[in-house]
Amino acid sequence: MKLTVKLLDIANRGVLLHSTDARSMRIRDGDRVLVADEATGKTAQAHVDTTGSLIAPGVIGVYRPLNATLAVDEGTPVEVRGAERPASLSHIKKKMDDGRFTKDETLDIVKDIVSDTLSPGEITAYVTASYINGLDMDEVEYLTRAMVETGERLHFIRHPVVDKHSIGGVPGNKITLLIAPIIAASGLLIPKTSSRAITGAGGTADLMEVLAPVSFSATEVQQMTEKVGGTIVWGGATNIAPADDKIITYEYPLRIDAPGQMIASVMAKKFAVGADLAVIDIPVGRNTKIATPQEGRKLARSFIELGERLGIRVECALSYGESLVGHTIGPNLEVHEALAVLEGATEPNSLIQKSLSLAGIAFEMAGKAAYGQGYQMATDILRSGKALEKMRQIIEVQGGDPTVKADDVVPGEYRFDVKAPQDGYVIDLNNSALVTLARLAGSPYDHGAGIFVHAKKGTRVRKGDPIFTIYAEQEWRLERAIEVGRVLMPVVVEGMIVERIPPERWV
Amino acid sequence: MKLTVKLLDIANRGVLLHSTDARSMRIRDGDRVLVADEATGKTAQAHVDTTGSLIAPGVIGVYRPLNATLAVDEGTPVEVRGAERPASLSHIKKKMDDGRFTKDETLDIVKDIVSDTLSPGEITAYVTASYINGLDMDEVEYLTRAMVETGERLHFIRHPVVDKHSIGGVPGNKITLLIAPIIAASGLLIPKTSSRAITGAGGTADLMEVLAPVSFSATEVQQMTEKVGGTIVWGGATNIAPADDKIITYEYPLRIDAPGQMIASVMAKKFAVGADLAVIDIPVGRNTKIATPQEGRKLARSFIELGERLGIRVECALSYGESLVGHTIGPNLEVHEALAVLEGATEPNSLIQKSLSLAGIAFEMAGKAAYGQGYQMATDILRSGKALEKMRQIIEVQGGDPTVKADDVVPGEYRFDVKAPQDGYVIDLNNSALVTLARLAGSPYDHGAGIFVHAKKGTRVRKGDPIFTIYAEQEWRLERAIEVGRVLMPVVVEGMIVERIPPERWV
Repeated sequence: MKLTVKLLDIANRGVLLHSTDARSMRIRDGDRVLVADEATGKTAQAHVDTTGSLIAPGVIGVYRPLNATLAVDEGTPVEVRGAERPASLSHIKKKMDDGRFTKDETLDIVKDIVSDTLSPGEITAYVTASYINGLDMDEVEYLTRAMVETGERLHFIRHPVVDKHSIGGVPGNKITLLIAPIIAASGLLIPKTSSRAITGAGGTADLMEVLAPVSFSATEVQQMTEKVGGTIVWGGATNIAPADDKIITYEYPLRIDAPGQMIASVMAKKFAVGADLAVIDIPVGRNTKIATPQEGRKLARSFIELGERLGIRVECALSYGESLVGHTIGPNLEVHEALAVLEGATEPNSLIQKSLSLAGIAFEMAGKAAYGQGYQMATDILRSGKALEKMRQIIEVQGGDPTVKADDVVPGEYRFDVKAPQDGYVIDLNNSALVTLARLAGSPYDHGAGIFVHAKKGTRVRKGDPIFTIYAEQEWRLERAIEVGRVLMPVVVEGMIVERIPPERWV
Repeated sequence: MKLTVKLLDIANRGVLLHSTDARSMRIRDGDRVLVADEATGKTAQAHVDTTGSLIAPGVIGVYRPLNATLAVDEGTPVEVRGAERPASLSHIKKKMDDGRFTKDETLDIVKDIVSDTLSPGEITAYVTASYINGLDMDEVEYLTRAMVETGERLHFIRHPVVDKHSIGGVPGNKITLLIAPIIAASGLLIPKTSSRAITGAGGTADLMEVLAPVSFSATEVQQMTEKVGGTIVWGGATNIAPADDKIITYEYPLRIDAPGQMIASVMAKKFAVGADLAVIDIPVGRNTKIATPQEGRKLARSFIELGERLGIRVECALSYGESLVGHTIGPNLEVHEALAVLEGATEPNSLIQKSLSLAGIAFEMAGKAAYGQGYQMATDILRSGKALEKMRQIIEVQGGDPTVKADDVVPGEYRFDVKAPQDGYVIDLNNSALVTLARLAGSPYDHGAGIFVHAKKGTRVRKGDPIFTIYAEQEWRLERAIEVGRVLMPVVVEGMIVERIPPERWV
C-alpha cells in the first residue's frame, strides 16, 4: 500500500497507521511492516501502532529511530506492506528446543537484532533460550564473530594493541583511569571502550566523562589512539559490536548474565578494536558476579579458549571482590581518587596495587617486561609522572581540559556522615547497599553524588567516628539517600565478641 | 513528578513523555512508569516513549489502552514516577533457572500479564522459559486457576453444563456449528466460547460471525445460554480467562505450542464457564499438532488429570487429522456446509460422523444416553430437525437472522478450478498449503474466500477433473492465491505406480 510520510518525533522504532489502512492490509497492532522508499531504495522494518484520528488514512507516521534508517522527508510516498516472518525466529525456536546455532544462523539473528528487525519480545526469547539451554564454545565463537561483523572495526598499523576488561560486580572499580595511561605511556596502544553504569553507580565511561567527552565514532577512536597511544571512550557511541548494547538492554530487566553471552560480548569488543592481547579482571567473592575461585577459573579458561580461536592472547586475573576498590563510589569522587594517584598519592593501596598488577600482566604479555617484572615497570611509569602526562594527553585529545587537577574535581556540596554507633569493628559493609545509596544520592547522573568510605571492613572504629559520607548535588536527593540508608543499614559495627552464649541455667 | 494529561489516540499501552521530564526522572525509553490519578485513586503502569516536540514539558501523553484503565480526562493532573521492578520478574527468572512456580508466584505473573504490567519482552521470557523448562501438573493447575481468577466467570443454576474443545491443527473443522445445537437441543447447556483464526483460515468464531454477532460480555453469554441452551461466541470478547489471549499473542511469532500452557488455556475456559463435563477432540496425524496416537493418549491423560483436579469430568477423543473435515475451508463455504447438514444433507460423511461422535460422548457423560447409545441419540436429534431449530434460536439470540438458509451463504464470485494434470489418484493433499491458499484468497476476513476440495486424498481422478476450487471476493487476491498455488502444488496426482525402479543394468 502506498502511503505518505508524516514524521513523528517519538523515540521508539515504530510507525503509526490509521486503523482503516491497517485493517485493509490485515495488519494488527504490534505487527511488523516493511517500509520501502522506492526513490532511494532504502527499506526498514518497524512495528505498528494504530490510531483512529492522529493521522489521516493514506498517511504513515514515521517515528524518529526508524527515520534514522529510512531518511525520508515529510510527504515522501513510501510502499508499506506486512513484513515476512524473519528466518531468525526459526533459529531462536531451534535453541528453545535445545538445538545448536550454526554460524549462519547466529549471523542472521545478530543482523536482525542490530537492524531492529526482531522485536523486543523476540530478542528476549533469544536471550532467554540462550541462557537456559546455553551456548557451547563454537556457538560463543559464532556469536562473537557475528557481533564484530555487524559493526565497525579498528585497524591499527602499529602493534601490539592491548585491551583490558573487568567483568564487574565490585563497586568503585576506577582502575581503567590508571591502567590505560600507564599502558599508553609505555608505548603500547590501548583503545579502551568502556560502558556506562547499568545497575552500578558509575561505569568507566561515566567517570571519564567528568574529564572529557566520551562519545566518538570508531574512526575517531582509532585516530586518537594512533595520536596519543590510548583513549577511554564510551563503547555505546562507537558502533563497535552494536548488537551487544541491545542484547544487554533485554537481559537487564531479567537480571540475566549468561556466561556464554557475556564472554562473547567482552571478546567481540576486544576483537573489533583489533586487540592482540587482553587482560581480563575477574572479581571474585560473595555478592560479586563470581562467588568462588573455582567458578572464576572456569570462566577464565573460557575467555582464554575463545581468545585462542580469535587469535587474541588472553590472561585473566582473579581479584578480591568483596570490598570496594579504593574509598570512593560515584563519578567525581572516583575521578578525584584516581587523579590523585596519578599525581603521586601513595594511597589507597587497594586501587594502586590492583591497577599496577593488571598493567604489569599486560607488559609481560607484550614482552615489554620479563615475567615477574611487569608490576615494577608499571610502578616506575606511575611514579615517574609519565602516566599523569599520558592521562593529560588522553584528556586533551578527547577534548577535555588537560590542566585539570585532582583537587579541581570536587564532590557535591550536600553531605552527610554516617557515624559508628559504638566502639568496635566494621564487620560488614554491604557493597550493593552502598551502590544503592550512591544512586539515590544522584550518581552517576549528578557527577558530584556518591559515597566516601572512611572505614572499610575490618577497621577498628570508636563511637562517633565517621564510617562513610554520602555526597549529593541536590539536597532532596541526599535526604532520600539518608532515609533509605536508615533502613538498609549498610554497615555493621560490633565488638569483637559478636554474640555471647550464656551457660545453660539450672532448671 | 506531577504532569498534565493529554490524551493521544494510539493503540498501544504506553505514555509519551517530554525528554526533559524523562531525563529529570531518570527514565529512559522503554522504561516502565506508574501513573496515578490521586482524585480517583486509580493507578496503572505503562512503558515510556519520549519526544522532544510532540508534547510540551509538564505534559504526559496517555495512549488509548492505558486510559481504558485510568479513565482520566484531558488536563487531569497525574503523579508519574518510575515503576518498581515487579516481583513476577523474579519468578520468571526462577523458571529460567529450572525452578518450579508456586501458586502465589503463578498468580503474580498472570495478574501482571492481564494488567499489562509485564512488557511484551517479559511475557515472552515467561512463555519461553515455561516452554523450555516445562510446567508440571501442579504448575499447570496453578496456571489454570490463576487464568480463571483474573477474569470473569459464569454461574449457572441449571446443570450439567457441557463444553467441547478441539485442540486444532486440522482445517475445515466446523464441527462446533453442529455439536453446539445438537447438545443444546437435548436440553443440556453449552455456553461455547471459541477463538478466531490465528494461523488458520477461520476459527469457529470467524465462522459463526457469518450468521450472527459473536462479541458479548460474560453476563450476556450466561443470559443467552440460559435462554436458548447454547451460544457460539468469540472468547476474546468476553473477559473470560483474558490472560490466555495475551499469552497466545506472544507464543504465536515463535510458533510455541507448549503442552502445559495449552492444557491450562483450554481448561481455564471450561472452568470459567462453569462446565461440569467437557469433551476434548485431539486430531492426530502427520502435519497436525499431535503426530502419533501415543502422544495423543499422553495429552488426553493430562487433560483428564487436570479435569479431576478442577472438578470437571473430561473425556478425550483422538480423531483422524490427516485430511480436512468435510470439503470446505473458509467462513462462508464452511457455514454453508454445516447449515446444509442441519437442513438434512447426508454428506459429507467426515463432518457428520465426527460431530455426532463427539456430541454422543457428551450425551453419555451427561447420562442422557446409555453407554454406546450417544451417537444414535445425536443422530436422532440431527435428523429430527431439532438441531436446525436450535441453531436458529442460537442465531436469533445472538442477533442474527434466524431464517437464514444454507443456500443464502455463498462463496466469493471469483473462482479458479485446479484440475488433475493426468489420470491417477490424489496421493497427497497438503493441508497447510490449502490453508495458505485460503488465506491468500482473503479468508477469514473476506467471508466468501476459501477452498472447496472436490477430490480428497485417495480419490481416483481423470485428467481435467477439478481437484479443488479457490474462491475469492477480490480478483487480485484470487490471482495471488493462484500464483502461489503454482509454487506450493498442494495436490499430487499419480498413477498407482509412483516410481518405477528398473533392474540394474550390466556394466
